Amino acid sequence: MPTTMVHAGWGDPARRKGLPSGAVSWLTSRVGRGTPSVPAPLADLPPSRLDADQLAALRSTGADVDLSDEARVSRAAGRSYLDLLSLRTGAFPVPDAVVRPTADQVGAVLRAGVSVVPFGGGTSVVGGVAPLGSPVVALDLCRLDRLVSLSEQDRTAVLEPGLTGPAAEALLNARGWTLGHFPQSFELATIGGFAATRSAGQASTGYGRFDALVVAMTVETPAGPLSLGGPPSAAGPSLLQLFLGSEGAFGVITSVTVRIKPLPAVRRYDAWLVRSWEDGIRQLRELEQSGVVPEVARLSDVDETATSLRLSAPRAVRMIGRGRCLLVLGWEGSPASVRRRRVRMRGIPLPGAGEKWEHGRYDGPYLRDDLMDAGFLVETLETSASWSSLLPVWTAVRTALTEALGECVVMCHVSHLYPHGASLYFTVLASADREWPPAKKAATDALVATGATITHHHAVGTDHAPWMSAEVGSLGVEVLRAVKQVVDPSGVLNPGKLIP
Amino acid sequence: MPTTMVHAGWGDPARRKGLPSGAVSWLTSRVGRGTPSVPAPLADLPPSRLDADQLAALRSTGADVDLSDEARVSRAAGRSYLDLLSLRTGAFPVPDAVVRPTADQVGAVLRAGVSVVPFGGGTSVVGGVAPLGSPVVALDLCRLDRLVSLSEQDRTAVLEPGLTGPAAEALLNARGWTLGHFPQSFELATIGGFAATRSAGQASTGYGRFDALVVAMTVETPAGPLSLGGPPSAAGPSLLQLFLGSEGAFGVITSVTVRIKPLPAVRRYDAWLVRSWEDGIRQLRELEQSGVVPEVARLSDVDETATSLRLSAPRAVRMIGRGRCLLVLGWEGSPASVRRRRVRMRGIPLPGAGEKWEHGRYDGPYLRDDLMDAGFLVETLETSASWSSLLPVWTAVRTALTEALGECVVMCHVSHLYPHGASLYFTVLASADREWPPAKKAATDALVATGATITHHHAVGTDHAPWMSAEVGSLGVEVLRAVKQVVDPSGVLNPGKLIP
Repeated sequence: MPTTMVHAGWGDPARRKGLPSGAVSWLTSRVGRGTPSVPAPLADLPPSRLDADQLAALRSTGADVDLSDEARVSRAAGRSYLDLLSLRTGAFPVPDAVVRPTADQVGAVLRAGVSVVPFGGGTSVVGGVAPLGSPVVALDLCRLDRLVSLSEQDRTAVLEPGLTGPAAEALLNARGWTLGHFPQSFELATIGGFAATRSAGQASTGYGRFDALVVAMTVETPAGPLSLGGPPSAAGPSLLQLFLGSEGAFGVITSVTVRIKPLPAVRRYDAWLVRSWEDGIRQLRELEQSGVVPEVARLSDVDETATSLRLSAPRAVRMIGRGRCLLVLGWEGSPASVRRRRVRMRGIPLPGAGEKWEHGRYDGPYLRDDLMDAGFLVETLETSASWSSLLPVWTAVRTALTEALGECVVMCHVSHLYPHGASLYFTVLASADREWPPAKKAATDALVATGATITHHHAVGTDHAPWMSAEVGSLGVEVLRAVKQVVDPSGVLNPGKLIP
Repeated sequence: MPTTMVHAGWGDPARRKGLPSGAVSWLTSRVGRGTPSVPAPLADLPPSRLDADQLAALRSTGADVDLSDEARVSRAAGRSYLDLLSLRTGAFPVPDAVVRPTADQVGAVLRAGVSVVPFGGGTSVVGGVAPLGSPVVALDLCRLDRLVSLSEQDRTAVLEPGLTGPAAEALLNARGWTLGHFPQSFELATIGGFAATRSAGQASTGYGRFDALVVAMTVETPAGPLSLGGPPSAAGPSLLQLFLGSEGAFGVITSVTVRIKPLPAVRRYDAWLVRSWEDGIRQLRELEQSGVVPEVARLSDVDETATSLRLSAPRAVRMIGRGRCLLVLGWEGSPASVRRRRVRMRGIPLPGAGEKWEHGRYDGPYLRDDLMDAGFLVETLETSASWSSLLPVWTAVRTALTEALGECVVMCHVSHLYPHGASLYFTVLASADREWPPAKKAATDALVATGATITHHHAVGTDHAPWMSAEVGSLGVEVLRAVKQVVDPSGVLNPGKLIP
């Protein structure tokens, strides 16, 4: 697996499977089809804006300073639909250098007086790694890639931030343990990015969100290092929870102490067609609130059910179209643990569909490249809400997107269950001739209006920053700004992100 | 039950049971016996230092402003051993008034320009309610005592901060629900205090620490109101977790949205004598890490086992003195849930001892009054640490206390289990002629030196503030100070607490 993405798409191009037969014509009949955005050949980059003093300051830290076009372009953008569009057309800003420090050099780089964008897997879909600032360098954490320590007794491991999901899992798995964090970006995203953005993996219902897996962190800031968290404490506010989700704007995470679990001996993925969206939500709520939960829980609405069955289980298509919804549950653990927890849900069992979902769980972003090649707009957005407001939020977002885009397919699933609520994850398909920003604005306004969060696990970046005052209040934003002023007085850390 | 404490002791004096027969002579033989501190008759209080303008400003908010001696003395101190000593000798500062706002008036009181100590149950044992500042008023939240709303679907309730533990439980129980938060201070402590101090109840192993039960809060600050938390979110740092544990120094909590659970139909408390302290800790760790946990888990060390059996189960005393330790587990829930989870531990079952513990679970502070009357020093301190450092921390604290106090009994129990560690709760008995502050300093230094937290659930207040830099680093303290500067620019909120 690649650790970086150098083309205008996702991950390893060899893993693209192409669209299922009939998909383009079916989708064209639903939403029309626009002009394909063909990746343009890469033009020469603008020269680095770093002056001699800045270059010397960066180099004096001992970190590797890379001015090559290849390095700079591969750290230029995240992987939102708009990022991919700009990468395909060649109209995107690039960092002025890529700086690769060792752990010991991070602090010195932050005090070199140059703006930095901390960079892990580059999988942000909210503009989190956009190289704003002039000059600005990408602070590539790829050399911080060690499993520092592992305590079997405490069930914790200390991981460095540059480890990708697969690299971290491989190190833990070799010793019989797992982190259990599998977001769709798993192949490329990194431990530091998971912590900096409050990531939630597809198995968060069982293993917990990433912010719940973190026990402690060390962070470098221009004002000095911080050691955060540790044993559960009542010694004042949680500074750990203040730096989790700080998106590189408060500091650079240099190590993360995470909870680990024994590598599961058994993995079972079951699927059903439940009677309706409302019935499925009720079943998930009852399951979650019973306290005996699966690792993965995922309920597709009617439109997502129809689309995913069309793509994965054509024989089941005859059962859809009656309001039925696909429900997938995944159970992982010891044989006894899975046996004890695994339940049957009310619905029509769909043998094989659970495993099919599991095998395709990281395919979405590859499919997006194919859809863009074929002339479609494809983007996702997510939120969470209390159980009692899940349906109103779902309706409001669908309405907002449909009104903004006109002909489109809006699909949604419930996932990431909590006792008091759950996440809603929307996928939107339309003709590539449609504009995404007005739709995103309408959807986010609808989230704010219905009391849902502006993001459940995609973070803030640049894209959500205009809604931060709506999310945490203007006084809340002032608090964030005051914290940044203390740890980053000259504002070199990830300029333009998180704080509006 | 009383909602306030007006004498120099704990709670309702009628609930004092007196010391078990033989306790005084046994304890005297172990630690000697000092001069009893007899509560002095209450002298006239110094006059209120509020000037006419300040009084007018407070009264103009519409809040009740009480200048009576009775009100002022009952809001003068928390309930640490040193608090009780000073209350008994009459040498204690008092607030200049007690102000009782409605929810709508809290913000105006904070903008009246007078320092305030937010006051709930007054059960702080770390100086959290000491009336520092001149002048300073106690901001008594007793009128904010409503269950605002309850959502059965979301399993959440909105509670006002002035509700005591029993009052909140009564309101929830009447509708079939429980909060499940039962700290030893339960009878008197309040919802606002639980949130402001990151309280942990005796059943936190099952129900969770209070900070894990809080889903959202509203807070009034001199700079305006904040609405914190809500559905799980990746929209930046957790401001909710920044105000949880802020001990009235960042704002006054005006409502708390908490997770609730169905009122348990079954409560089972089991007890065993396990082979050794080390074996008991291992068994608790394995139980916690199995993921199938009891609500209450509590393992006493040899000294605490000997003392508590002497006081509660004399027939079992013959079995002690061989390194055996008392282990209590409590299971609460539906019959199916308790049946599914309840396990036997390795050890000698002690029928009745679990229930005895449950019935006496709130007796400790009453017993302390009796011990002080009899001429003994009695104080507690608590911490948490990773499983792998629990024994070294235990040894270091025992050594520090014993070296500082000379003849003393140091008892300890493990409770509040987490996958990565647990709490250690120490109770110290010595002659009243001994000085507590040097012992407390030695013990806290030992906590810092062994990497344990300076407090697991007693909070910071004044007593732990000198160690805050050791706990969160000097930069961490600067961050807290910057946050306070934004929300409380003139420093009226609980002066002298939390931040050194």
